[in-house]
Amino acid sequence: MDRIKVFAPASVANVACGFDTVGFALNFPGDTITVQKTEGTGLSIAKITGDQGKLSLNPTENTVTVAAQSLLDHLGYTGGISIEIEKGLPIGSGLGSSAASAVAGAFAINELLGSPLKKADLLPFALDGEALASKARHADNVAPCLLGGFIFVRDHASHDFFSLPTPPDLYAAIAMPEVVVLTADARAVLPREVPLGSAITQWSNLGALVGAMFLSDYGLIGRSLQDVIIEPARAALIPHFDKVKAAALSTGALGCSISGAGPAVFALCKGKATAEAVAQAMGNAFRQHDVPSFELISPINGEGVKVVGE
Amino acid sequence: MDRIKVFAPASVANVACGFDTVGFALNFPGDTITVQKTEGTGLSIAKITGDQGKLSLNPTENTVTVAAQSLLDHLGYTGGISIEIEKGLPIGSGLGSSAASAVAGAFAINELLGSPLKKADLLPFALDGEALASKARHADNVAPCLLGGFIFVRDHASHDFFSLPTPPDLYAAIAMPEVVVLTADARAVLPREVPLGSAITQWSNLGALVGAMFLSDYGLIGRSLQDVIIEPARAALIPHFDKVKAAALSTGALGCSISGAGPAVFALCKGKATAEAVAQAMGNAFRQHDVPSFELISPINGEGVKVVGE
Repeated sequence: MDRIKVFAPASVANVACGFDTVGFALNFPGDTITVQKTEGTGLSIAKITGDQGKLSLNPTENTVTVAAQSLLDHLGYTGGISIEIEKGLPIGSGLGSSAASAVAGAFAINELLGSPLKKADLLPFALDGEALASKARHADNVAPCLLGGFIFVRDHASHDFFSLPTPPDLYAAIAMPEVVVLTADARAVLPREVPLGSAITQWSNLGALVGAMFLSDYGLIGRSLQDVIIEPARAALIPHFDKVKAAALSTGALGCSISGAGPAVFALCKGKATAEAVAQAMGNAFRQHDVPSFELISPINGEGVKVVGE
Repeated sequence: MDRIKVFAPASVANVACGFDTVGFALNFPGDTITVQKTEGTGLSIAKITGDQGKLSLNPTENTVTVAAQSLLDHLGYTGGISIEIEKGLPIGSGLGSSAASAVAGAFAINELLGSPLKKADLLPFALDGEALASKARHADNVAPCLLGGFIFVRDHASHDFFSLPTPPDLYAAIAMPEVVVLTADARAVLPREVPLGSAITQWSNLGALVGAMFLSDYGLIGRSLQDVIIEPARAALIPHFDKVKAAALSTGALGCSISGAGPAVFALCKGKATAEAVAQAMGNAFRQHDVPSFELISPINGEGVKVVGE
């Protein structure tokens, strides 16, 4: 194969009580990249669209190509490869933009070269790309983007993760307000210490969320989707978050919290119709306070990154 | 029915990373109580054995009868009932002694009166008994003693709990050292605040433990059975705990931690033979340091409290 096009989807990490551990994939938006064998040697970026000029064309400074190069080094392939990047995911949205780029880069190279590695084995190479953007080899966006579904990461360093079953009617509603949350701010507001009682509440909810997914128990999912530690600290970074969350819950969402480090807000819902109503309600709550917002709904993406053309 | 005898088993709570949330039932030891209708009105305790004189014969001051009376009040039954208590569980062992007494009291009354309530619905009455002994309506011993198996308690106040599937080859090894751990001391050593990083490690392990039980993944059970918050604080209350734990792990235990508030130490093992070897190793480690110890092994009790005679 000389040319292939892949699509890597958005993902939601820090799922309420699941800070640093639980993420899931959406069907869209996502990043599309096309890789093509060329004469000569080495990786080059031919074009980037959709990034509003924010991303580097230098392969050592771009998440896609750092992940791609990591895999190429592993495989010992030195032939020429040209990459086109269509950035469909907004940067800094809290929807796993850098993870999608990193996953797309590693997956596209693997497909281009005849799939020498299994999909799950691409994780470390994608993490190399993610580390360029986020300064951390955290898999809670990368793993769901790569493999689809809900992923629980027990330990990032040893890549110890497993898939959670997804109840069939589970939908995500997303509202992306047009505000900027700086990663540095999102980190700075995190508490260094937490009361033991709050920690117990958080782990009780997280363990119950895991059980609820295996049991397909929507009620228990809803009762478990509570974050008493991270969300209270970060909510102030998203204007009118509390009103948006209240709108989601009063419209029937099972739960609602901040996607990744924000500013995107996600809600999990039972059924497509509820998700549509919840997305609308969240967007309206932002707009009522003069914050522009874009909304979408998606089932849980069970496939992850995929080939979409040649 | 005029007379019935029931057996309520020991249980292990605070299962490593699952402080305040996860407990499971053993086959033995346990408390056996016999209830018998008598002439006249009201509850009375005819006899208590096995308690070394520690327990009260006054029905308002005994865990068994407080639970029993709570259910009798609910049912509006005022006839005479005489209770004999055979205390098979050592008091203050960390094996759910008060929970077993409370569960036995509520269950025996329900059986004596023709099972007007379902087993699971006896929980609040058993919790009334447990509260007498532990000053808290915590279900992490009571629920597994009542229902058997592994129980995850999301929220104690609302009785929000569910059962975790138990992998078929899972055994518990228990070592009970002859030392006293005062509940007040076990509480006093708990940290009031914990570093966020430690809390994240703890909830990552707990969520993974829940997943591992559903997946019957013994390896993941082992990797998840780590307590970075409670066990380090309480280990000093149990002489030579670190050596006992090391002996368990080096003999093949999946994990090892403090049972309840101690001093009993539990290990979870794959297979009966491993559990036997681990129990022996833990006991030997105590004895090598001149701490007398009694050991036992048990599969996970899937039944909970049960009728054993009339």
